[in-house]
Amino acid sequence: MKTQVAIIGCGPSGLLLGQLLHRAGIDNVIVERKNPDYILSRIRAGVLEQGMVDLLREAGVGARMDAHGLVHDGFELAFDGRCERIDLKALTGGKTVMVYGQTEVTRDLMEARAAVGALTVYDADDVQPHDMKSDSPYVTFQRDGETVRLDCDYIAGCDGFHGVSRQAIPPEALKIFERVYPFGWLGILADTPPVNHELIYANHERGFALCSMRSATRTRYYVQVGAEEKVEDWSDARFWDELKLRLPPHIAQRLVTGPSIEKSIAPLRSFVVEPMQYGRLFLLGDAAHIVPPTGAKGLNLAASDVSTLYRILLKVYGEGRTDLLEQYSQICLRRVWKAERFSWWMTSLLHRFPDTDAFGQRIQQTELDYFVGSAAGRQTIAENYVGLPYEEIE
Amino acid sequence: MKTQVAIIGCGPSGLLLGQLLHRAGIDNVIVERKNPDYILSRIRAGVLEQGMVDLLREAGVGARMDAHGLVHDGFELAFDGRCERIDLKALTGGKTVMVYGQTEVTRDLMEARAAVGALTVYDADDVQPHDMKSDSPYVTFQRDGETVRLDCDYIAGCDGFHGVSRQAIPPEALKIFERVYPFGWLGILADTPPVNHELIYANHERGFALCSMRSATRTRYYVQVGAEEKVEDWSDARFWDELKLRLPPHIAQRLVTGPSIEKSIAPLRSFVVEPMQYGRLFLLGDAAHIVPPTGAKGLNLAASDVSTLYRILLKVYGEGRTDLLEQYSQICLRRVWKAERFSWWMTSLLHRFPDTDAFGQRIQQTELDYFVGSAAGRQTIAENYVGLPYEEIE
Repeated sequence: MKTQVAIIGCGPSGLLLGQLLHRAGIDNVIVERKNPDYILSRIRAGVLEQGMVDLLREAGVGARMDAHGLVHDGFELAFDGRCERIDLKALTGGKTVMVYGQTEVTRDLMEARAAVGALTVYDADDVQPHDMKSDSPYVTFQRDGETVRLDCDYIAGCDGFHGVSRQAIPPEALKIFERVYPFGWLGILADTPPVNHELIYANHERGFALCSMRSATRTRYYVQVGAEEKVEDWSDARFWDELKLRLPPHIAQRLVTGPSIEKSIAPLRSFVVEPMQYGRLFLLGDAAHIVPPTGAKGLNLAASDVSTLYRILLKVYGEGRTDLLEQYSQICLRRVWKAERFSWWMTSLLHRFPDTDAFGQRIQQTELDYFVGSAAGRQTIAENYVGLPYEEIE
Repeated sequence: MKTQVAIIGCGPSGLLLGQLLHRAGIDNVIVERKNPDYILSRIRAGVLEQGMVDLLREAGVGARMDAHGLVHDGFELAFDGRCERIDLKALTGGKTVMVYGQTEVTRDLMEARAAVGALTVYDADDVQPHDMKSDSPYVTFQRDGETVRLDCDYIAGCDGFHGVSRQAIPPEALKIFERVYPFGWLGILADTPPVNHELIYANHERGFALCSMRSATRTRYYVQVGAEEKVEDWSDARFWDELKLRLPPHIAQRLVTGPSIEKSIAPLRSFVVEPMQYGRLFLLGDAAHIVPPTGAKGLNLAASDVSTLYRILLKVYGEGRTDLLEQYSQICLRRVWKAERFSWWMTSLLHRFPDTDAFGQRIQQTELDYFVGSAAGRQTIAENYVGLPYEEIE
């Protein structure tokens, strides 16, 4: 088999890159080790930055999002008995975020890909990129008991944190930056009406809580739990009780509870690998970096990597600008680190850290008080939350 | 002896409070365990916020400062080979800082106090406040072998971190917040022309450096050193060599060196005690809180405490508003904690921390890059650096 761009991984980054390339007339094949049902069963992020919303529209897959997604002009920060709104739209000159589940984005992209007849190979075992440092890289995989070789010009590694793409790069060629947080998020999905029309991020002495949603009838709530906690120990009733304790009373009293559809504990981690490329292999999204979910940057960072690689490949195929390929990592990393900083900061600001002393605790409260109370402070929160601008590729 | 307000400590806070009260017709006596020469020999801070400058003018002691002080409209942040200016005046709607040494402020205040004939008792041993919880507190001290009793309405503890005022409060009545940083500042004073017309705060892989000044012919430079370093190991030559290594090359090459007039190592500490009062004893400045010097907030925080207590006492003596006395601590602490946060943040942002991992180091660089690159970020730095506004007393 032969294509121009081999894409490893059929999550939202691989699909979005494939869709954009296809519309630009650049042939691509996606190779994925799982099947579509598995991919669509994963519960993931749900807040899209303006830049990602624009990119999905550019890819021609914005119709269902625009019909069903919820545009949010702001969010609430609850702390110290107060509930303070960050007015994203007013603070950023009109930018907003879109609440629309990653699962829905993935579904829209899968359907668009099927509609144009672009090739996705599911259930591919032993996916492996080869000869990335040469001019003729290729990907091999097992399918129905046979080894398939996919020759290509470039390989896009969109296969997540545990994927093969980053692991295929010699460890000595990479520098790792990592922080593991001493707690996790216990999240549930429920078919209940949202407690508030916007998200609420709560700093509370019992720990962080987040009231999010997927739609007007489906909610996603989280509470910070110890790193050693087990989901089996959290009945729905215990979860709802804990969540209510961490919300301001006037919010807690209007919370509608219900049976959970999904319940799980996710660890919190910051991770960056440098560089984000190795020869003709490019890493995108979680394959190259992880952020803790506070601030909703994970999926959005993947989208900005996709935008960068897409715009570079447009110039490579359209204008022969192969010089741009070497800039991919630097361009991505400038934005990645700013989002890593914001995610680390929001995490530091809103969670209880088991080993924080009285001074550190008071500094955290003051940080909230200062940033929310200062126009400039609120603006720093807002401009990061809606997403810093994508760099131009020139 | 009898007075209305007994002030313990003849540093700038005690003197400024005394001067303001005297001009308002409120009698006060300052009791100080040292002599004027000792006090004027101490090398201290040199950057005054707009609020403190205004307060000194209000106290009638601004003439020499206005004649000789240097108004600074901005400062430089050097990092990553860059030198980026924070334009204080443009970012804060016209506010600036004044470079004028604490020693000069103290001298001006001492002369003003002498001129009006207000009493200062120097060389007072065993100073001790008494009966602070009663309606008739008093201070005792030893002078020329005799015990003197100074009866008063209120006691102002302006005697610094190691002074007796805070120590006179039962420990169980106080909550302590503290952070000790794992490094110190090695500073020298020299009669050389400043390397730059504004201050330069430098983040460098060898450690923090600061180029400050006291006048157009006297400089104050600092380098971060390990907590265990000894001043004897730092010849002038070694100091200048180290400073040059930490500055951007184009700055380093124009540095004029010379013999040091003073050279010392200061530890860095954050400290706050709550509450800042006990009955009729009020703590001001370093007696209640310490900030690391990054951001130049120490003296300025003392001035805002002085302003708060002065304005409360004005209403107590003028309008009988004794209800305001109980608000002193809360009013001060709101501003104290914001300055503690800024000083902690500037310290965290600019120093090398011996135990920081690769992720933390990169986050520090990104924090600098983001805050300097964002208009809102620069504004948060500027509004804190010139000093957050004083609260109205109503």
